[in-house]
Amino acid sequence: MSLDRLIERITETKNPTVAGLDPKLEFIPGFIRERSFEEKGGGLKGAAHAVWKFNKAIIDSLCDIVPAVKPQSAYYEMYGWHGVRTLYKTIKYAQKKGMYVIVDGKRNDIGATMEAYANAYLGVTEVFGEETEAFGADALTVNGYLGTDGILPLTEICKKNDKGIFVLVKTSNKSSGELQDKILENGSTVYGAVGDMCGEWGADSIGKYGYSCVGAVVGATYPGQLAELRKKLPHTFFLIPGYGVQGGGGEGAAKGFDENGLGAVVNSSRAVMCAYLNEKCDERDFAGAARREALRMKEELRMAISK
Amino acid sequence: MSLDRLIERITETKNPTVAGLDPKLEFIPGFIRERSFEEKGGGLKGAAHAVWKFNKAIIDSLCDIVPAVKPQSAYYEMYGWHGVRTLYKTIKYAQKKGMYVIVDGKRNDIGATMEAYANAYLGVTEVFGEETEAFGADALTVNGYLGTDGILPLTEICKKNDKGIFVLVKTSNKSSGELQDKILENGSTVYGAVGDMCGEWGADSIGKYGYSCVGAVVGATYPGQLAELRKKLPHTFFLIPGYGVQGGGGEGAAKGFDENGLGAVVNSSRAVMCAYLNEKCDERDFAGAARREALRMKEELRMAISK
Repeated sequence: MSLDRLIERITETKNPTVAGLDPKLEFIPGFIRERSFEEKGGGLKGAAHAVWKFNKAIIDSLCDIVPAVKPQSAYYEMYGWHGVRTLYKTIKYAQKKGMYVIVDGKRNDIGATMEAYANAYLGVTEVFGEETEAFGADALTVNGYLGTDGILPLTEICKKNDKGIFVLVKTSNKSSGELQDKILENGSTVYGAVGDMCGEWGADSIGKYGYSCVGAVVGATYPGQLAELRKKLPHTFFLIPGYGVQGGGGEGAAKGFDENGLGAVVNSSRAVMCAYLNEKCDERDFAGAARREALRMKEELRMAISK
Repeated sequence: MSLDRLIERITETKNPTVAGLDPKLEFIPGFIRERSFEEKGGGLKGAAHAVWKFNKAIIDSLCDIVPAVKPQSAYYEMYGWHGVRTLYKTIKYAQKKGMYVIVDGKRNDIGATMEAYANAYLGVTEVFGEETEAFGADALTVNGYLGTDGILPLTEICKKNDKGIFVLVKTSNKSSGELQDKILENGSTVYGAVGDMCGEWGADSIGKYGYSCVGAVVGATYPGQLAELRKKLPHTFFLIPGYGVQGGGGEGAAKGFDENGLGAVVNSSRAVMCAYLNEKCDERDFAGAARREALRMKEELRMAISK
């Protein structure tokens, strides 16, 4: 009913990180792309196959050292329904390998529609009297702009199926302040108000490690706000994007952790996925390069957190 | 580069409405569900086939009198990749029948990821040197919580490919005020600030009817705010949900229109799609019932707007 399963994976691997799977075709080594083109032909089908092969190798290489993966839905939807099929296969394969899967879909809607999203990603779909998993992930990122109507259908399913959500609070991008930093008449900020809502939405689902099923997305690129929110929201687990390529460092990300070294998971997408490009190693060693970068990141974060 | 194509369809059909396609299996007549089960078997594949058959008949029945359809992405994603394939087929079929297609996905992200969504829904995906449409809709609903970084990739594609977006400003649901109605220190509201951003994001894409490619979602359930925003945002076209089942009436929705009877399109999903249930007619006449309700709604709105 909370994020305990994620926290336990983090404790087991001693690694509070998540590997983002944002597999745009141009990031995938040429030999995989060529083989997919030969096997499945061009077009979206061939692209989706290349993404699947790439993801599978990355998962195989990371599953014993990284607790979770975060496929970013946009990079699958851009390959149409073939890409979405690869998203489903990726989720199921990562889970089979013991990983916790956070779908980064930033979904948002209300009532029956939000219930449909909740069922799609965290629950089951009833068809002709039988229940089937449409995607069956472990957690989903969501946008809270519509208020409680858009969150309750999710928390219901989280509590029932032992799943979690992460609500966008203070995002890692440059323009996040345009709306999120606006000051309210009571002196709080828009992101602070959404943070408070996360606390309320999660209040009745606090698990054995002190964290609820309603997490928050807070960027590593804003360490001040990360520290402020960590203090203000003791029961809200953080998903921290913006580490690596976006400029956030280990020291900044460390502000999101509690005194026990828990309370957050830090995402790295391109730096891990495309480590073979940074390393300039043989592209056939892309999965090995991803593992080396994941281990480096783990150490950097552990050092920063223990300070 | 703006919403001119939608506006022209509205003028041609003299009907400022859009039919929402939210085809949850339980809304679909039994004879279609049974036939799909026989043809494709149970599970998500059979469900997605039933949805496709239903949508096709609704589109055939409405295409000469209703300018646009709005498939709600959640109701396709809940049937997994099979459902997403039906979403694609629905978009392409509606366009072939002359309808303007607004995908209601409320997508949101930043930079390269938002670009992936923009390409997926409004642009093309490049694969092995060839360009393919992943979904190829005409417009997409989006959430502006992340600021300009999340919108620019969309407006670029809108200007290039003659497409549009609708940003959530004041949503139709009960709890929309929790965040959206909060008062800022300058006396404005959160929804007002997002409305202003829509004006700015659209400023360089104003078409021949005075409206830009950046529309706004404003609920019929809040006529006061609808009137306020109509006055404040003369170049922002409105997509108005909340009419019908959610309790918004024609008179409320009319507040979103300008003095020429343009400037907005009003959505009705369940009341049109499930008109056969309200009418209590033979379920085999479901498409006819949808057409009768669409014509009734058109008249109600035209009366309310002309007042």
